[in-house]
Amino acid sequence: MSQIETGLELTIEKLWENKKYNTLRDVMSTMQAANIAYVLSVLPDNAIAPLFRLLPKELAADTFVEMEADMQEKLIKSFSDTELKNVLGELYMDDAVDLVEEMPANVVRRILAQADPEMRNSINELLKYPEDSAGSIMTTEFVGLRADMTVAEALREIRLTGTDKETCNTCYIIDKDRTLMGAVSLRTIVMAQDDQEMKDLMEDNVISVTTMEDQETVARMFSTYDLNVMPVVDGENRMIGIVTVDDAIDVMEEEATEDISKMAAVTPNDKPYLKTGVLEIYKNRIPWLLLLMLSATFTGMIITGFEHTLSASIILTAAIPMLMDTGGNCGSQASVTVIRSLSLDELHFSDITKVWWKESRVAVMCGITLAVFNFVKLLIQYSSFPNYVMASATICITLALTVVLAKLVGCTLPMVAQKLGFDPAVMASPFITTIVDALSLLLFCTIAGMLMPGLV
Amino acid sequence: MSQIETGLELTIEKLWENKKYNTLRDVMSTMQAANIAYVLSVLPDNAIAPLFRLLPKELAADTFVEMEADMQEKLIKSFSDTELKNVLGELYMDDAVDLVEEMPANVVRRILAQADPEMRNSINELLKYPEDSAGSIMTTEFVGLRADMTVAEALREIRLTGTDKETCNTCYIIDKDRTLMGAVSLRTIVMAQDDQEMKDLMEDNVISVTTMEDQETVARMFSTYDLNVMPVVDGENRMIGIVTVDDAIDVMEEEATEDISKMAAVTPNDKPYLKTGVLEIYKNRIPWLLLLMLSATFTGMIITGFEHTLSASIILTAAIPMLMDTGGNCGSQASVTVIRSLSLDELHFSDITKVWWKESRVAVMCGITLAVFNFVKLLIQYSSFPNYVMASATICITLALTVVLAKLVGCTLPMVAQKLGFDPAVMASPFITTIVDALSLLLFCTIAGMLMPGLV
Repeated sequence: MSQIETGLELTIEKLWENKKYNTLRDVMSTMQAANIAYVLSVLPDNAIAPLFRLLPKELAADTFVEMEADMQEKLIKSFSDTELKNVLGELYMDDAVDLVEEMPANVVRRILAQADPEMRNSINELLKYPEDSAGSIMTTEFVGLRADMTVAEALREIRLTGTDKETCNTCYIIDKDRTLMGAVSLRTIVMAQDDQEMKDLMEDNVISVTTMEDQETVARMFSTYDLNVMPVVDGENRMIGIVTVDDAIDVMEEEATEDISKMAAVTPNDKPYLKTGVLEIYKNRIPWLLLLMLSATFTGMIITGFEHTLSASIILTAAIPMLMDTGGNCGSQASVTVIRSLSLDELHFSDITKVWWKESRVAVMCGITLAVFNFVKLLIQYSSFPNYVMASATICITLALTVVLAKLVGCTLPMVAQKLGFDPAVMASPFITTIVDALSLLLFCTIAGMLMPGLV
Repeated sequence: MSQIETGLELTIEKLWENKKYNTLRDVMSTMQAANIAYVLSVLPDNAIAPLFRLLPKELAADTFVEMEADMQEKLIKSFSDTELKNVLGELYMDDAVDLVEEMPANVVRRILAQADPEMRNSINELLKYPEDSAGSIMTTEFVGLRADMTVAEALREIRLTGTDKETCNTCYIIDKDRTLMGAVSLRTIVMAQDDQEMKDLMEDNVISVTTMEDQETVARMFSTYDLNVMPVVDGENRMIGIVTVDDAIDVMEEEATEDISKMAAVTPNDKPYLKTGVLEIYKNRIPWLLLLMLSATFTGMIITGFEHTLSASIILTAAIPMLMDTGGNCGSQASVTVIRSLSLDELHFSDITKVWWKESRVAVMCGITLAVFNFVKLLIQYSSFPNYVMASATICITLALTVVLAKLVGCTLPMVAQKLGFDPAVMASPFITTIVDALSLLLFCTIAGMLMPGLV
């Protein structure tokens, strides 16, 4: 929730405490549903149901949709059967399905009992679509017109059936067996002559998706084609429903959050942070931490094998954190850039040689810059230590090579992961860091062996 | 670009080589503008302008808008003045402004010369709004109606002026000095009786933003309030333009990409990866790498001071990468989760004690789990080394404390950064890792000194 009028929570709480119900009704009627839902969420629990009852019917339903699941549950438990029936009657089908998906079983039973038979059937139909499919986010309420309807007939149909539909801005032309023929905007209908027919006005080149399409692909198409609504068809091109842009936006935000979570080695979770339990957060994080910790066993083994050199030159040991962090940072710069481009569909596996060529040049430039800076720094910092020139050279040559390796590993792994059908977002900083750590330590040993043979 | 019909590029290229211009015109007329722009982008340069000329006027303009800036520039250079005038005449004002912002100066001069005087004035007006403001992404083309218009009059006005507007689905009621009074949807107008007046149909509680509002806030409001279009007003509530949902979606994607870039210590860049030059990528990455590398000087100094202990027990040295990586991973799990919640406006600075309490409990659970696993692993792995029990205990106690520290630092810094007016996304993995590295090494020295006093 955001952009809340500051202080309105306090006004409403005060009005509530002073039992100014008429004023409350008037104030809340001027507010946006999302804001009312927010204000109710910060008020004492016993105020929610009575305040909700003050809202006009339609605003009440809109507010209900904007609430978090736990508040919806509390409210439903306080509803009489008639109240529940009223709220359900005002919901769009996709919101009703969301509600059923999020409530516990006993609440779902009450909802289904109070929904009218038509809604109950639709809910059951929609629940069959797999999670994350177009079918699971669509609504079945759209305006369908016939190709031979005139503008006058179409307007009559829209006036008759349009009130309950989520949108009338785009109407769909379907034939007798519900095959999708085309789309026509309300604006086109309004602009046309009364006797023109839909088949002459409609756009017949309509972008549609099937019910089983991945919701992320659907959301991406809204952005690519600048859509406000998208028709959803079954395998035989029969029109089943529509996805509206507000639901596509929710999917985009969800998917971006998922990518970001995976990049930080956290199992994604669609609940807001403050509403997520400690145990759940722990479960989302600990497997990755364990896996990454155990894979650090390799770096430990490399260091153990490198014992004599390290104990002979503390300068080398002291450089380990810098080498590892710089390698990790370089790798994650490359991997995260590539992951984001993949998920925006700007980059495909076929571009891999272009990516290598670009990253190699960037890597050489970064590697040389960092190595030169660091060499000067080390010479000044350690001038009183034995072997400091060769140790500094060892560190900086390793550094430059690590940067190149890290960038190449960082850009390659996400692309390969996607090619193999995994989510590239998992191949971000934490995994890249672990791999690059081991590689850079191996390089470090090898180069030290060549430049400082006396120590090994 | 995405969801491209596979192989259509090849068909079009072949038709082009065989000079089948009529067929090409027919095929391209059935395609979506975004797809034509994509196909043109992969065809040879000399095919672009001739193919573009085959497109019907309106589709040509839509395709032009979907192109990348470098292709638009090539195309404009090949246009005659009349062709340029035609394309400009079909553009919506916000697309024209985007074009002017992206083209080099000599192309801009040609564009302004060919734009009609009204468009030239609007472009110049719109260019004055700061980048990233609502004014910079709005269009001035909306349908304005008067409060005393009847439905019949309103429909007449919409038919008269609606053709050139980006959307008619929502019309705005403005008074004589253009003050925003309310909004009415085309659907409501169509559903109403011919003699009803706008003032009785309009929603007078309209969400609007001022021209100077940050575009990220505007995009967030689209998501919070499920909007398709948002009116933009000046400081005196006079209506200046509208932002449409497609532009809001572009802003959301841009902002998510920016956040993700910053989290990986890369300066954000709004060009697609493959279109960004090597030098530019280098410049976006190297300052952060240098800064982070130099700040690793501290970890180096800590290790130097810790020399005797480390050279006496290789087990301790071998644990450094594991400690640092685990600390970094724990910190970035917490920081990235908090950063995303902040940018979705689900979390505010006032929640900081809740966040601490939650993260402390998660951290203790993660810390204990990791320490126990690792202790068992170390006892088995190093059973032949001297002092292996105390060394393992030192490592695992440090590990548990590092996890707790990392989680607390990770959740606190982004919140403090936002409170101080900085972008919290910068406080992600790389910075957290650098800070946590130093803290965990200090802990390591201290605990080794307490548990293995003989070594120090």
